[in-house]
Amino acid sequence: MDGRNIIGRKKSGNDSGVLPVFSPGLQRTLEGSFNIATPEEVDEALALATEAAKIYGQLPPARIAAFLRAIADEIMALGDSLIQRAMQESALPQGRLEGERGRTVNQLKLFADHVEEGSWAEATIDRANPERKPFPKADIRKMLRPIGPVVVFTASNFPLAFSTAGGDTASALAAGCPVIVKAHESHLGTNALVALAIQTAAEATGMPDGVFSSLNGTGPGLGQQLVKHPLTKAIAFTGSHGAGKAIFDTAGQRDIPIPVFAEMGSINPVLLLEDALKTRGTELAQQLADSVTLGVGQFCTNPGLLIGVSGDSLNRFVEALGEAIKQKTPGIMLNQGICENFVKHKKLVVQQEGVQPYARAGQSPESNQGQPSVARVNGADFIKNTTVKMEVFGPFTLVVECADSEEMAQAIESLPGQLTGTVMGEATDFSAAVSIIESLQSKVGRILFNGVPTGVEVCHAMHHGGPYPATTDARFTSVGTDAIKRFGRPLCYQNCPEALLPEALKNNNPLGIWRVVDGKRTKESL
Amino acid sequence: MDGRNIIGRKKSGNDSGVLPVFSPGLQRTLEGSFNIATPEEVDEALALATEAAKIYGQLPPARIAAFLRAIADEIMALGDSLIQRAMQESALPQGRLEGERGRTVNQLKLFADHVEEGSWAEATIDRANPERKPFPKADIRKMLRPIGPVVVFTASNFPLAFSTAGGDTASALAAGCPVIVKAHESHLGTNALVALAIQTAAEATGMPDGVFSSLNGTGPGLGQQLVKHPLTKAIAFTGSHGAGKAIFDTAGQRDIPIPVFAEMGSINPVLLLEDALKTRGTELAQQLADSVTLGVGQFCTNPGLLIGVSGDSLNRFVEALGEAIKQKTPGIMLNQGICENFVKHKKLVVQQEGVQPYARAGQSPESNQGQPSVARVNGADFIKNTTVKMEVFGPFTLVVECADSEEMAQAIESLPGQLTGTVMGEATDFSAAVSIIESLQSKVGRILFNGVPTGVEVCHAMHHGGPYPATTDARFTSVGTDAIKRFGRPLCYQNCPEALLPEALKNNNPLGIWRVVDGKRTKESL
Repeated sequence: MDGRNIIGRKKSGNDSGVLPVFSPGLQRTLEGSFNIATPEEVDEALALATEAAKIYGQLPPARIAAFLRAIADEIMALGDSLIQRAMQESALPQGRLEGERGRTVNQLKLFADHVEEGSWAEATIDRANPERKPFPKADIRKMLRPIGPVVVFTASNFPLAFSTAGGDTASALAAGCPVIVKAHESHLGTNALVALAIQTAAEATGMPDGVFSSLNGTGPGLGQQLVKHPLTKAIAFTGSHGAGKAIFDTAGQRDIPIPVFAEMGSINPVLLLEDALKTRGTELAQQLADSVTLGVGQFCTNPGLLIGVSGDSLNRFVEALGEAIKQKTPGIMLNQGICENFVKHKKLVVQQEGVQPYARAGQSPESNQGQPSVARVNGADFIKNTTVKMEVFGPFTLVVECADSEEMAQAIESLPGQLTGTVMGEATDFSAAVSIIESLQSKVGRILFNGVPTGVEVCHAMHHGGPYPATTDARFTSVGTDAIKRFGRPLCYQNCPEALLPEALKNNNPLGIWRVVDGKRTKESL
Repeated sequence: MDGRNIIGRKKSGNDSGVLPVFSPGLQRTLEGSFNIATPEEVDEALALATEAAKIYGQLPPARIAAFLRAIADEIMALGDSLIQRAMQESALPQGRLEGERGRTVNQLKLFADHVEEGSWAEATIDRANPERKPFPKADIRKMLRPIGPVVVFTASNFPLAFSTAGGDTASALAAGCPVIVKAHESHLGTNALVALAIQTAAEATGMPDGVFSSLNGTGPGLGQQLVKHPLTKAIAFTGSHGAGKAIFDTAGQRDIPIPVFAEMGSINPVLLLEDALKTRGTELAQQLADSVTLGVGQFCTNPGLLIGVSGDSLNRFVEALGEAIKQKTPGIMLNQGICENFVKHKKLVVQQEGVQPYARAGQSPESNQGQPSVARVNGADFIKNTTVKMEVFGPFTLVVECADSEEMAQAIESLPGQLTGTVMGEATDFSAAVSIIESLQSKVGRILFNGVPTGVEVCHAMHHGGPYPATTDARFTSVGTDAIKRFGRPLCYQNCPEALLPEALKNNNPLGIWRVVDGKRTKESL
């Protein structure tokens, strides 16, 4: 296990201390020590990335696509050693990590296809009209161009799919931006393996030196340096509210502001409408208990809030939910800090006025394990309290029992921004719930019907985002092909000679992409 | 002249002081006194707008389009009284203001067409696949939805086209967002007339109460209140760096961050390449002198920086430019503050090391007049100095004489972000200038060839924006149809019952818009 930083084409480890990795499952330090990047190494990575951007940002889409596919191949070539290391570092089971690897590799290939298809760049052309009165009209064209080096913070809960070669890296590279990864301290070995795969792929496909770097360090140390660095052009982050907010605030003090795409989690309210509770309350209870405890509850889309109107149906649901949760078993969490925070935050929520612990998994948790549990609170106590609305990252959910549908509406109105909101309802429920559903829409990035929010499909129509504090920029998604749009800015060309135009804007449309020409969508040449 | 605030359907003037308007041309206070909005009136306007958003944001595109067209009609119905008042308040000539009115009205109609066409909402659909293994695929759809009440700061230099019913208001209303305008203190009467036109149009087309309000007050007073207000969902601003930065910084302290679209001006570098100087230096000098002095230089796209390589060609150009500037006459500026700043900032730039005043208009300026002038500096003195790169808002430009093309490249590299960059070059110039042109592109939102940056076409392909400090968000434009995208955020619907889907996402595509379905662009029904 080579624990050096990867800076462009080289490996770099200065005598500035190392980080170990502790396995939450094995309860011991794992093989490998990881060199902490020095400020000089940070400078070097950013300087290389800035130079690389000038070449990489101009490469034909097919070259970028080949690079992304080569990364996918190199990750697969790591074989079982990657899965084994990730298992040791995250305590996630083999099947889950193999699935996550599949997602990661498919995501890279999806972005390869997307960038090769090319229409994402929003090429738009308004042709000249020299005869126009009172002034002739110029030839004006625009498209999205890459914004430059992107710093990617990797996530603890997805060591592959939201990490070194995850969605942020894939979409930034697809957009034509070099990437500097800040390795997550929980899975430095997994990071090192994947970073090496990317480095190998970059060399094999002839990418410019510095198109990718991977640095080891702490959030307050390395993370802050990367956020403040004048050559950093954008930041992508998935993680806790605390860490995301620290990044956002530091970025806010930069001389030159940059976009910060921080996905900071959510409690993902679920509305339990009356007829759904009546018809299939027990089924819903099981479905939600499964979702709450999936992956030891360590998903940003974990349904942490279940809201219904008091009555027999809700009582039966709560009872069934309690039974289902009791049957669940504690699971090892991603790292010690996450487990400690789970216990601490759950305790804090349960201490709030009117909150009652209701049920928990029968088996007691061992070291580093999270115990599935559920609590309940009435609508009035929920609405007036901010703390009770905090995310408890882990297998926990809170049932809010509202006096009536009006109080339910107020409970929704009192929520901060969320990644998702779910409506469990029968066709007969919806007409009475129109305004509540609209209110829920105004709070979320994705609204689901009769499903669970965990499981975020990687596709064109996905929006994994949402109003603050779910993210720092509700206008962009971190999952799905549109994630690429975070890393482009429009550049407009007026009366530009054909020879100097980028391919996407040339008269004969050599890339064969969809363009808007004089207001009409077309693939035709001019 | 009714100087009360407009708050939804009513007029409102509390006993909290009034603002007068001083005419820079007539040198006297004009008829009308304008009630300063109280904090209670601010609250009322935002609360009404928030309620209005729930209705307005759901209206069919045709209704919104009808509202925008009615505003255009009401503005035209104001007739000459609007032009006369704007002339008195801005000292801009009649022809210019009539042209600006035409632009304003056409812009409203363009957005009406754009919102009616409907494809701007980026409707995207991925269909379900219940057979997929290992997990069935859900039905996922998304589109842009309006973000809620938008505060629009009006601009001094475009009393119509970038003001009360200007591009920001038109694009926000088109997106389905209510608007609260902060009237500009320089043209409160013009604002009052146009605001009344909007109010009338809103009533005539049955828009919800609060879809539009217009408030009078100062930047530090009213402006800051609007930026801090918890119900404000986005801010659009065009003006000086100082005012824009103050808004951006205040917004940065909000509990819940919101997008701030501040266009803060620029010095708009022009590269004078050798063969162009040789072939048509005199012509270029005249063209640029005209652009620098157009509208007394009061455009954010004013070419304030002309960069060439020292030599005979550049010398002849500078001489011709000096002659052309001498022939220009001083003009009355928009207001006293702008004129004072013009004098102050010009003086500051000219005091910098190595900067030499070169030529100025023969006629001396009278009160409130700006005197066209040009200065020169060598490349080395320019590169090392930040102050010399500040915007001098008015009829001023600085010629940078570089030792060679390498120094020219360094001069470009030393620039902060810009709205525009212009290349004056012959076909024979370009091959040697490729890297300089690429460097210029990285600094600007729009690159022009052999034209002048003043005159921003309102069209689909326009990008009026650019890297900070030209704007606070380089990813969005304030001119052209894509300005609407500033005011939408994606909302994703998963397994949403057909009846609850917005029209744009329904199976049979009732709006007939372009959508991306399973990754393919189409207007077909599902």
